[in-house]
Amino acid sequence: MSTKFPCPKNMEITLFIFLASVLATSHGAATPHQIHLLRPHSGASGHHVPGISCLSWRLAVETDNIRDWDLVPEACENYVGHYMLGHQYRKDCNAVGYSALQYAKSLKLTGDGKDIWVFDIDETALSNLPYYARPENGFGAKEYNATSFNEWIEEGIAPPVPAVLKLYQKLLPLGFKIVFISGTSEKYRKIRISNLKLAGYHTWEKLILKPTSESGATAVVYKSAKRKELVEAGYRILGNTGDQWSDLFGTYVGNRTFKVPDPMYYIS
Amino acid sequence: MSTKFPCPKNMEITLFIFLASVLATSHGAATPHQIHLLRPHSGASGHHVPGISCLSWRLAVETDNIRDWDLVPEACENYVGHYMLGHQYRKDCNAVGYSALQYAKSLKLTGDGKDIWVFDIDETALSNLPYYARPENGFGAKEYNATSFNEWIEEGIAPPVPAVLKLYQKLLPLGFKIVFISGTSEKYRKIRISNLKLAGYHTWEKLILKPTSESGATAVVYKSAKRKELVEAGYRILGNTGDQWSDLFGTYVGNRTFKVPDPMYYIS
Repeated sequence: MSTKFPCPKNMEITLFIFLASVLATSHGAATPHQIHLLRPHSGASGHHVPGISCLSWRLAVETDNIRDWDLVPEACENYVGHYMLGHQYRKDCNAVGYSALQYAKSLKLTGDGKDIWVFDIDETALSNLPYYARPENGFGAKEYNATSFNEWIEEGIAPPVPAVLKLYQKLLPLGFKIVFISGTSEKYRKIRISNLKLAGYHTWEKLILKPTSESGATAVVYKSAKRKELVEAGYRILGNTGDQWSDLFGTYVGNRTFKVPDPMYYIS
Repeated sequence: MSTKFPCPKNMEITLFIFLASVLATSHGAATPHQIHLLRPHSGASGHHVPGISCLSWRLAVETDNIRDWDLVPEACENYVGHYMLGHQYRKDCNAVGYSALQYAKSLKLTGDGKDIWVFDIDETALSNLPYYARPENGFGAKEYNATSFNEWIEEGIAPPVPAVLKLYQKLLPLGFKIVFISGTSEKYRKIRISNLKLAGYHTWEKLILKPTSESGATAVVYKSAKRKELVEAGYRILGNTGDQWSDLFGTYVGNRTFKVPDPMYYIS
């Protein structure tokens, strides 16, 4: 057995070495190949991925393994920037939208106008990437500045996340009613409405913004309470899309949740 | 405003073009750069990532956006193979282990022996990669063969997932009791014990395997029920680590959950 498996005292030897040795010796064996002929390479798709630790950091963020983080690690600023400005972010968003649409199409709606799809706004329906891409914000690697962020919100020019807009556009003719639930303060209602319309979101059942009275609540508490109100009003939350796990955890989260990537910030 | 934002009828224009145009024009502006000087590149870290759609597929799987999938897409067999045999899988596992350990160290244990950490076994404590790497299994891209998989389990030579073994080794001296909950049938208890020990897992509070009477239950139902029994017996589930969302969803999931990557199969 020792040729097939390292002895216990060497158990910390990596799986890589274990498999590599099997690969190296299997050619001489009389039996058919026991192990796939693939050669182990480095990184995704067999190519070395620069910033490999940032890729792992991002995966850990997206799978909710790293919580309550404050800033993008300084060493990952460029990585996150290239990700957000490059193809991969858009491809990843497209995969989320595609998966959500396949699910939506599989449903039979009642037609009573109570079948809803919940969307978060920031980094879900709308993108603040033009703001986060400013050098002073460094894709979330620089300290958050509430004043300048609110000034950006007040401009009302955030573009859509294209894959989410596309999902929205396809959900409407299927019969879904749309509900936006955002942590943005109620005082920005007017500019948020104009921004959503400018970005291509022309109709919705409800646009729920955060009342000043609830400004102290975490997103997961606030959003759970709002979803509870929807369910108590007879709505069925069939889908729920957000960039933060706090959009998708808690209570009344809906029949299916869809996580849009966001490596730039964390909201609890 | 038209120079800062595409007009509504062009709203489907990608964010990429929007940002690229801002980047291209911002050099002539009298004001400081409004947008980060990063140039948009393709893919992660600014390099083209071959198999880009497989990377998005994997992220969607890891974030639970794609559920109930049956096989790795045929086009992603090589991608998944290179990922699993390459550096990235091990780096991603290390990031999970590191994050879990940071959390574990932040806790104050009671010392009454009731503070537990739950681990799944397959693709969490132990790796079946030597099995899935066989050409006939193609890293989950080929149809599942229960007979040959069970023969592999009966060999009892699955190596550890190195990052998870390391986490286990560091949790013990912190005072955590370990509970393994696995969907493996009770009839494999003897060989699973010997395999766990061979792989370096020498001690545990409980090893919960699936009774034949519960063979029909989904993982999320079966594992929730077992965790409920633990909590009712006075245990506190402080951490919970698994490769499937069905290990980490349901009830009594624990104070924190940690998702180990697994792009090879899906268990509901």
